[in-house]
Amino acid sequence: MPARSAESAAGSPPREPPLLPPPHGEGLGLPPPLLFLPSRPSAGRRRQRAPHSWERGRGGKELTRREEGRKGSRPPPPLARPGGGAAAAGSRWGAGAGRDGTAMARTLVELFYDVVSPYSWLGFEVLCRYRHIWNIDLRFRPAFLGGIMQATGNKPPAMLPKRAEYMLKDVKRMAKYYQVPVQISKDDFQRITGTSSLGAMRFITAIDMTQPQYLEPLSREFWIRFWSKHEDIGQPENMLAVAGQAGLSSELSQKLLEMISSPAVKNRLKETTEEAIKYGAFGMPAVVAHFNGEHHLFFGSDRLELLGSVIVLQILMLAVLLMDETADRNVSQYS
Amino acid sequence: MPARSAESAAGSPPREPPLLPPPHGEGLGLPPPLLFLPSRPSAGRRRQRAPHSWERGRGGKELTRREEGRKGSRPPPPLARPGGGAAAAGSRWGAGAGRDGTAMARTLVELFYDVVSPYSWLGFEVLCRYRHIWNIDLRFRPAFLGGIMQATGNKPPAMLPKRAEYMLKDVKRMAKYYQVPVQISKDDFQRITGTSSLGAMRFITAIDMTQPQYLEPLSREFWIRFWSKHEDIGQPENMLAVAGQAGLSSELSQKLLEMISSPAVKNRLKETTEEAIKYGAFGMPAVVAHFNGEHHLFFGSDRLELLGSVIVLQILMLAVLLMDETADRNVSQYS
Repeated sequence: MPARSAESAAGSPPREPPLLPPPHGEGLGLPPPLLFLPSRPSAGRRRQRAPHSWERGRGGKELTRREEGRKGSRPPPPLARPGGGAAAAGSRWGAGAGRDGTAMARTLVELFYDVVSPYSWLGFEVLCRYRHIWNIDLRFRPAFLGGIMQATGNKPPAMLPKRAEYMLKDVKRMAKYYQVPVQISKDDFQRITGTSSLGAMRFITAIDMTQPQYLEPLSREFWIRFWSKHEDIGQPENMLAVAGQAGLSSELSQKLLEMISSPAVKNRLKETTEEAIKYGAFGMPAVVAHFNGEHHLFFGSDRLELLGSVIVLQILMLAVLLMDETADRNVSQYS
Repeated sequence: MPARSAESAAGSPPREPPLLPPPHGEGLGLPPPLLFLPSRPSAGRRRQRAPHSWERGRGGKELTRREEGRKGSRPPPPLARPGGGAAAAGSRWGAGAGRDGTAMARTLVELFYDVVSPYSWLGFEVLCRYRHIWNIDLRFRPAFLGGIMQATGNKPPAMLPKRAEYMLKDVKRMAKYYQVPVQISKDDFQRITGTSSLGAMRFITAIDMTQPQYLEPLSREFWIRFWSKHEDIGQPENMLAVAGQAGLSSELSQKLLEMISSPAVKNRLKETTEEAIKYGAFGMPAVVAHFNGEHHLFFGSDRLELLGSVIVLQILMLAVLLMDETADRNVSQYS
């Protein structure tokens, strides 16, 4: 597994806590696990395009944009800072850094996704919104849905006519609920069947291997192109266009395009896909949360309340540990 | 469609409201759609068995039990009162009755379920908890899952090995999260395949046709027997035992047992199943909410936050209408 911030991965949570807190943190004075805050702009991210209406802030204002020119060194968004981004950003609920300055272990949450999957987009955006609230170590794991389906013998859900009919409405409603601009119509099932996301996912894998700070905006732009605008993402020129939207220089984009036929990129995508399958995935999105020394698969974009309730419990456990530690220090200081 | 309280069905909500409110009623001062309150005891319901630990009240106390003897006329639980139960019970969020004493139209929500389905049990319990908070007209629609699967060509999800493996964990987690005592183990998938719920669902249909006030407790007892205790629900003596647990007299239970081979009961179950399919169901639970003059299918037990957000919007719309009406009256009274 290509771990980018191994030191914050597993941690040492207390033994045998109850798996889940009372639903929605009842009695604990906690907010409901899902607050559905609008997506926050990453601190140092530069945008080449005007923000979409759904990306506007809570008060209807546009997100702050820093237009310091297209080239030059770009500070990576918080996520990409190995092991410290979100903690440094300061979370309302997270313990952040300990008294001695060392970062406390955060729950590692991996999102396996493919941009051909609309539900993956929903999961991606919700996790992006909640990573600071839940103070999780969120890792994006671009994988290939086609490979997962083939390996597990799963069939696209829309192959059942009644389910396809339902999915049309479900995706629309879920997209509206989560405020993610997925556009879906009946033709989309044919469109998906006729589309291979292999090239796009290799392109995304290539950025993950070279400039991972672009992984999040690049993935989002692929979804916007394919699921909001209904435009092709398979042709080289279209991948370059997406890269431009995500703020990549044309040199970097061209380099990625060359990389997608390299064994290194192909193998990396294959390995990530196999890892998802090893975790038990049979479709996407597949969310894998690591706590209590185990991995826990949450399939789909409809188990995020459940994931949230587990994570909030982890935070509580860590807070209690920290309080104990502080109390011990105070006792030894004054006794 | 065997409508029991047609007058409270459709209503006349305003034209073209936005489909969904801001997520979780943000900015509206509303509580999050799902509060996961423990199940409340029905006012007049009598229990023949000791309540399970998961049915205890919030403070850990047992639910109030009224032990006024096993026989005699039993007041129906609020749900069974056509068109007025929940409104009369007084909901924190519901508009209840209008100023002139007429009940305001409530959103009709139908739950199509089969006791062989553990996710149906989750959906059933969550809707039971929320019907007063959402002030919905909740209708239980016992149907036959086998019939739906056959008609739509759907296969049990656990037939895919990886999905079966996942479902084991998912049902466990969801049951804990929702505080419903589903017990599931690997053998259960075989157990389901080897079980026909046809007899049980006909038995439940028979109570719906004769003494519908027992529909809720009887259905629950079937789930408890099959999914908590892992005991058979197909044999006549076992159906009688379940009926006894639900508080039915032995005369009534015996009558139901005779009814399950009658064409009337068989046809009613068939009709309900066909109705679910007509609404677009391809599995269970299938929740059908009626608003804006249309029906909206929510499949599974994992779209209830979404359903809640829609219903809360309906309540708001009705409240605004009521305020307008009151203002008009005041104007005409004093001018």
